[in-house]
Amino acid sequence: MKKKNKKVNASILIIGNEILSGRTQDKNVAFISNWLNSKCGITVEEVRIIPDVEKIIVNNVLSLSKKFNYVFTTGGIGPTHDDITAKSISKAFNVNYEFHKDAYKILEKYYGKIKFNDGRKKMAKMPKGSKLILNPSSAAPGFITKNVLTFPGVPSILNSMIENCKKYLIKGSKTHSKILNLFTVESNVASKISIIQNKYKKFVDIGSYPFFRLGKVGISIVSRSTSKEKLKRVHKELVALAKFKKIRILKN
Amino acid sequence: MKKKNKKVNASILIIGNEILSGRTQDKNVAFISNWLNSKCGITVEEVRIIPDVEKIIVNNVLSLSKKFNYVFTTGGIGPTHDDITAKSISKAFNVNYEFHKDAYKILEKYYGKIKFNDGRKKMAKMPKGSKLILNPSSAAPGFITKNVLTFPGVPSILNSMIENCKKYLIKGSKTHSKILNLFTVESNVASKISIIQNKYKKFVDIGSYPFFRLGKVGISIVSRSTSKEKLKRVHKELVALAKFKKIRILKN
Repeated sequence: MKKKNKKVNASILIIGNEILSGRTQDKNVAFISNWLNSKCGITVEEVRIIPDVEKIIVNNVLSLSKKFNYVFTTGGIGPTHDDITAKSISKAFNVNYEFHKDAYKILEKYYGKIKFNDGRKKMAKMPKGSKLILNPSSAAPGFITKNVLTFPGVPSILNSMIENCKKYLIKGSKTHSKILNLFTVESNVASKISIIQNKYKKFVDIGSYPFFRLGKVGISIVSRSTSKEKLKRVHKELVALAKFKKIRILKN
Repeated sequence: MKKKNKKVNASILIIGNEILSGRTQDKNVAFISNWLNSKCGITVEEVRIIPDVEKIIVNNVLSLSKKFNYVFTTGGIGPTHDDITAKSISKAFNVNYEFHKDAYKILEKYYGKIKFNDGRKKMAKMPKGSKLILNPSSAAPGFITKNVLTFPGVPSILNSMIENCKKYLIKGSKTHSKILNLFTVESNVASKISIIQNKYKKFVDIGSYPFFRLGKVGISIVSRSTSKEKLKRVHKELVALAKFKKIRILKN
């Protein structure tokens, strides 16, 4: 029985001056991309990092939401003046920016009526019609507006809530990968790998990445495919190539 | 004597399936952005991460090189089949993709005539008219084509060669920053910070970022400006706000 290969893609839009300036090291791209592929079979095909500027957020949300099945945004949904993601997405889709009843209730309950001040109330405002992505660690929910899913920027909070967006997503075919680590230099195997890549170009992507380990240089050859069987065949050919060239294979 | 505030901006284009898939954690964005600001007064205003696909590289190189003073690309200039950055940039600017004489000489000398195989020769091919960015750690040079600067993706190699691109860059005004770490929650100071931000909106950008330290929550308030004097004034107002609200300031 052959399973149909279903492609679903996404882009990630990181919103935040602190990432652009280099002050903060982004960790959300790798996490979201790995999670999307392994749990939902969705491939991330583009990432953009942009500043907290309304016009720029609006333009990027619009262009990415047209190009990809989903857009994941991170950052800019806290209580301060520089948190303008929700407002900007409302503007992008030309819908009202208003209190979400359930989000308001969740936050009011979390903080208590007395401590529920204006900054905190702001976190209940979002594009009209959005559905909530619940947040088990700090209450303030993310939300989905059309095909755009909005998360906070703090990695630990984002990580704790990502499972809660799964129900909104159409699932695709998972991309599997196999890695072969060789103690050799890229140029020693480049032409042969190129031949294997050409032979399987419709089904498998082969990437080659140099590493330094145990004082030696080596390369990781990473093959990726939605077909486990094709992946196995490519891996076999790569191992045969290494053996033929008498290249040491690094296990692990 | 007043120094003129000169704005020079850049974007970073990270080329590589391994970053998009989440297999490899990017480290080049933070490094390049910090280096550009501190050493050249150049502000990174957009980052994109894209796959090793010619058409996508061509489109992004063209659109970013029109939008920003400089584009820094990383990745895809090694010896293997998936290294297509140099060829793609040639295509983007409609110039020949050919051997660069000096690059060829450097690589031939580095490897020796016998070991200078086709994969290695490929690293001497680049867009016609490019100027070299010398590489002290692994010889294969980067290059600058119009306003696009091309670097390898391996962070240690990129870091070792970045100083060698400085001579090609027009310098701008450095953005200075001051950080105030407070043991409080964002919503406690959000409205007051917003007032300070509005007062200085032409000169200073204030960002607010939650942190968790010593078992407590806090916020880092980061002010950024090309004017040291305006930055000092904003910092003073922020400290006064903290004192008025009896908020503990975290030193360091």
